[in-house]
Amino acid sequence: MKKDTKKRDVLLYAAPYFNADMRWFTHFACGDPLLAFTVGKKRIAAITVLEMVRFKKESRFDVVLDMNAEMAALRESVPDAGPADLAAALIKRYGGKAFMVPPDFPAAVYDKLLKLGIDVVVGGSPFFPNRVIKTAEEIQWLREGNRASCAGFRAVERVLKESTINRAGYVVYQGRVLTSERLRLEIEKACLDFGGINLEGVIAAAGVQGTDCHCAGFGPIKANELIVCDIFPRITGTGYWGDMTRTYLKGKASPAQKKLVADVKKAHDRAMANVKPGAICYDIHMDVVNYFKELGYKTEIVNGVPTGFFHGLGHGVGLDVHEAPNLGGRAVQKTPLKENMVVTIEPGLYYPEIGGCRIEDSCLVTADGCEPLAKHPYKWEIA
Amino acid sequence: MKKDTKKRDVLLYAAPYFNADMRWFTHFACGDPLLAFTVGKKRIAAITVLEMVRFKKESRFDVVLDMNAEMAALRESVPDAGPADLAAALIKRYGGKAFMVPPDFPAAVYDKLLKLGIDVVVGGSPFFPNRVIKTAEEIQWLREGNRASCAGFRAVERVLKESTINRAGYVVYQGRVLTSERLRLEIEKACLDFGGINLEGVIAAAGVQGTDCHCAGFGPIKANELIVCDIFPRITGTGYWGDMTRTYLKGKASPAQKKLVADVKKAHDRAMANVKPGAICYDIHMDVVNYFKELGYKTEIVNGVPTGFFHGLGHGVGLDVHEAPNLGGRAVQKTPLKENMVVTIEPGLYYPEIGGCRIEDSCLVTADGCEPLAKHPYKWEIA
Repeated sequence: MKKDTKKRDVLLYAAPYFNADMRWFTHFACGDPLLAFTVGKKRIAAITVLEMVRFKKESRFDVVLDMNAEMAALRESVPDAGPADLAAALIKRYGGKAFMVPPDFPAAVYDKLLKLGIDVVVGGSPFFPNRVIKTAEEIQWLREGNRASCAGFRAVERVLKESTINRAGYVVYQGRVLTSERLRLEIEKACLDFGGINLEGVIAAAGVQGTDCHCAGFGPIKANELIVCDIFPRITGTGYWGDMTRTYLKGKASPAQKKLVADVKKAHDRAMANVKPGAICYDIHMDVVNYFKELGYKTEIVNGVPTGFFHGLGHGVGLDVHEAPNLGGRAVQKTPLKENMVVTIEPGLYYPEIGGCRIEDSCLVTADGCEPLAKHPYKWEIA
Repeated sequence: MKKDTKKRDVLLYAAPYFNADMRWFTHFACGDPLLAFTVGKKRIAAITVLEMVRFKKESRFDVVLDMNAEMAALRESVPDAGPADLAAALIKRYGGKAFMVPPDFPAAVYDKLLKLGIDVVVGGSPFFPNRVIKTAEEIQWLREGNRASCAGFRAVERVLKESTINRAGYVVYQGRVLTSERLRLEIEKACLDFGGINLEGVIAAAGVQGTDCHCAGFGPIKANELIVCDIFPRITGTGYWGDMTRTYLKGKASPAQKKLVADVKKAHDRAMANVKPGAICYDIHMDVVNYFKELGYKTEIVNGVPTGFFHGLGHGVGLDVHEAPNLGGRAVQKTPLKENMVVTIEPGLYYPEIGGCRIEDSCLVTADGCEPLAKHPYKWEIA
């Protein structure tokens, strides 16, 4: 296949609340889809009349059209007109020639555009390569997100400090056995005070639940068990996320737990030291893989359950909580880090018989290294 | 074009947190995309190893594959293999013939599937027509969502009751001028206590802000102004939403405000009385349009700003906060209501010189009428 080298305008159709490219492109947030495209330097949008006034104020588009009125006019000749018909009509009106849509562009609209004879191809990922490099403003917004995460950790520490341990070995908070659900509620409220909404949930998973590393956690929490707390709130106003993880334990840790946490922290330190402009994401990940191997930790599937270090070391964070670049185990991803990228560093080890431990910071790649966007202590044993 | 009448299996690729069809299809929630398809009655999924254990427990799929392992194996022969290559390989393995993908299926994957020679077409909307009719379990989950909305209204009422009015005419709460932001925080915390996360935000917009009907509201709230509070929390565990609106006022309403609110309430009563199996969504909407017209309310764009009743009367609610059926102004939508659909009824009137008023309940269509899923009083003037 010949590579497409045509100069192309961009065309998006999505709801910015749920589509980071659209939110980044428009600097606007709403829950209903809008149409946005360029023709050369001109930026054109058609948006529901409900959002039009706000959009005109908040976005920096050259042409803002009332999607309802445009659609109604179009439907006089094409009764079943949908977004693709509208896009085609507006492309014609504004003299657009060739377009590129994002990989997650809706197939129905793409399909119809092709049938309507529009010259359109699907672009690569990341669709807007500039989204990967954060501006000073975006870095500030990401700091706010991570500050909300820190507020969540302070809530966890307060709850565990104020808790006691009952005879059955459970953690007791305010007269009741502490559950993951209750702990999450305290975290969520603390994040809200800092403008952060935990829209994908919070992880507060203890014991064996903490080894299934995307399990949110449920039910009573026992003393002397590792509690993985992964807090990734999104700041409502800006749409930027925090993403940090700390692992706690109420009571007294066993030697195996102590070693596990210490080794994850060492891997975390090691990876942080490797993060700098020019470093290859894959290499930073593999260094941690090899380090854990050297220390004798096995990564394998035991009785259908993954154990060891079985996830990527980190990922970009921005308007998506998981975005480019990916610090994972795919050799083809020889992506070098660049200044003002923001990536998580989150090594973890998970063994059902010991528990899970993950330590994560969101880090800004600086001119010669990296710095965590928000600092929070790594103290984890709470008596 | 010939209509496609082939019997087709379904194929989805999406993250269930952000894709209601996927969540409905899998009964599973996670933030990363998975691949799910049918071959006849067999349901097959490939999911990241991080979620695999949970997925096996929580979903009811016949085959659950480790996406990471499958992808790694595939990449030995196809180094840049992506989700479409994986889908094509699994379709071949399980003997799939012809597929239908949802309208919002990612264009990049669709495009590649076509290039790989897979027989795939884009399906219509709603993709799963059964999603529109709610099961007893789903109705229960929607009740929980709306109960969270009610908790939000109680918070608003408490805050306004405890507030005073200062000499400059602003509402004062706990010694400070009450802002929309503060009011939203109280609402959000109250919703959290009922398991509801306001992931698209809450609307608490006063005065002229309340007339821009998707403006969330910002800054100080004045006394004697209408405050539109639209609360649509999503219950974390189930993914089902509440969606209710009440309009309040702290202080003393003007005759024009009183008339506006009373007329919106009359329209609301009228629409509720029309909701029953067999009733046509478009007709219920138009009845309210005509009723407001009869009462002398104009719907028009004044200086670029829409005024009057310029939005749809309502919409379905489920795993999406806006889903089928649509109770709006498109004549082609002759959709009849059916028992166990859940729709919002939310007439509103918006005039910058008076303020905005919207009253909304989420209603279950019963055998012979409708009932609000959660009841909350319509008292709105708070002295």
